[in-house]
Amino acid sequence: LQASDFVVSQLLIGDGERFKTLGTAEHAIGQLSEAGLERNDAVLALGGGVVGDLTGFVASVYLRGIAFIQAPTTLLAQIDASIGGKTAVNSPLGKNLIGSFHQPSVVLIDIETLSSLPSRELVAGFCECVKQATVASRKLFVETRDFLDRLRSNRVPLISTELQKLIAKHCSFKASIVAGDAQESISRTDRRSRRILNFGHTVGHALEAVTGYRRFRHGEAVGLGMLVAGELSKNLGLLEELELKSLREAIRLCGPLPRVDDLDEDTILDLISRDKKSLSGQVQWVLLESIGHARILDGKHVTRRLLKHSLRSSWREI
Amino acid sequence: LQASDFVVSQLLIGDGERFKTLGTAEHAIGQLSEAGLERNDAVLALGGGVVGDLTGFVASVYLRGIAFIQAPTTLLAQIDASIGGKTAVNSPLGKNLIGSFHQPSVVLIDIETLSSLPSRELVAGFCECVKQATVASRKLFVETRDFLDRLRSNRVPLISTELQKLIAKHCSFKASIVAGDAQESISRTDRRSRRILNFGHTVGHALEAVTGYRRFRHGEAVGLGMLVAGELSKNLGLLEELELKSLREAIRLCGPLPRVDDLDEDTILDLISRDKKSLSGQVQWVLLESIGHARILDGKHVTRRLLKHSLRSSWREI
Repeated sequence: LQASDFVVSQLLIGDGERFKTLGTAEHAIGQLSEAGLERNDAVLALGGGVVGDLTGFVASVYLRGIAFIQAPTTLLAQIDASIGGKTAVNSPLGKNLIGSFHQPSVVLIDIETLSSLPSRELVAGFCECVKQATVASRKLFVETRDFLDRLRSNRVPLISTELQKLIAKHCSFKASIVAGDAQESISRTDRRSRRILNFGHTVGHALEAVTGYRRFRHGEAVGLGMLVAGELSKNLGLLEELELKSLREAIRLCGPLPRVDDLDEDTILDLISRDKKSLSGQVQWVLLESIGHARILDGKHVTRRLLKHSLRSSWREI
Repeated sequence: LQASDFVVSQLLIGDGERFKTLGTAEHAIGQLSEAGLERNDAVLALGGGVVGDLTGFVASVYLRGIAFIQAPTTLLAQIDASIGGKTAVNSPLGKNLIGSFHQPSVVLIDIETLSSLPSRELVAGFCECVKQATVASRKLFVETRDFLDRLRSNRVPLISTELQKLIAKHCSFKASIVAGDAQESISRTDRRSRRILNFGHTVGHALEAVTGYRRFRHGEAVGLGMLVAGELSKNLGLLEELELKSLREAIRLCGPLPRVDDLDEDTILDLISRDKKSLSGQVQWVLLESIGHARILDGKHVTRRLLKHSLRSSWREI
């Protein structure tokens, strides 16, 4: 950028959800102001989902909004978080409780950045790939699973044309959903609702919260959350056992996930009932009718007892 | 609201710009979360401009944005701040440095609320009426000045059909400008640009900042800022002396303004050069060609020397 005559200021922030706070945002805003950034300047988010979420939020509220560019360097951010304009910071009362919708002007993806990612970060990213593919279509699901299968058996390298093409397909799908429902309308329950992208997130957010955002990468928590959402779908008679097995297999191909069996179930259940995707006091679940067909279901159909049972069955499957 | 079966939670915030901080916003967001507000709930701002700005900001970032209603109780908020969706909090580095555009779902105005306003608050509100009328049209300017004249000579009471009609005309004008330029585009310099509403604000903001937001009501600072902007317009050869006299007379009819002659001119000039309406390092001035015709002028035409001279001449006219 400097070689192209841009005046560039840098700001580093700590890595991890626990740094994604209003305090960090205020500090960043102060830096933008000190650097003299004006309304026609821009901020570039170079990093993973945390950097993108926080930078987007800062850009959305500095001088009532300036432009920003996403340059995601993690798999999760490349296929999901960098596209769609959701920005956020956490609050002690909940993850992403504070945020905005602020679309990036450009999303710039270079898969070479993935070569230096720690393996857990890759696992987390692949979990989000599986999530997205599961609610997208059987075609994208199969392509994603096949890539994972070939990667695990060393038949394809990570940094490959195959991965680049797969990421591009994920981006297209994500963008198509966002284009049809940019603000994630709370009244929509159809298959093109942006909310289907929250598959696995209700339990995932609770797992992150109960461990103080320290144990799980976001994608890992979503991976576990999908297992529960799948189990719940089966227990409600929506999803066939064979389909659930396909989902489990795809999640396993992502890699090892952190332990969950030591976590207090009741705290998790309490946190789920406070999830911000709730509507009129009812959690809205994204469940599955089959691979490629998500369904948004009102929480009144999901008793605490059924959920507890689904949690336990899922933990046994890991 | 309770009589109509709404569940209502109340939150009081301190009065004045110095409470319009990210800290207050975070506290309020915590209260919304504790009260269990969800994405389809709403926040109502009952109060003056500070309450409206802060409430709007909180509503814009809580769960990435929930609905809000403006019920402005000050004259300034009724004719100006409640319409147009500008929300903000202050930072130690600048007033309204942090904010968003978030349109209210409803703006509810009851002029009876003005009967309990302290007289300084009314003066501040009338200053904003004069500002808005000055950039709107000679017709609205004359109507506003005539109302002030009749009010000052006790020919019309404050709470009157005349004031109600005048406020309605101001709201219509403000709404028409906002509708054509909701995000206040920085590249527009035409007569319908939202930025013309910032007439008097460049110096006004500096006056507020230099006194730590303690001496001036916002409208009072704008009243003084208009005197300087008018003087500057005359000194640049844009505005005729007779027109400037009309503007001064209208501002005088608003009522007495706080002293300014003890403030450090150089600090004011430094703050002006940091004003957030600047573009590529240049302050963008809203100046006057005649009553009803504002003009946006690049700051490069305004030397520090000329500005200092205009400040001094204006202070002498108070």
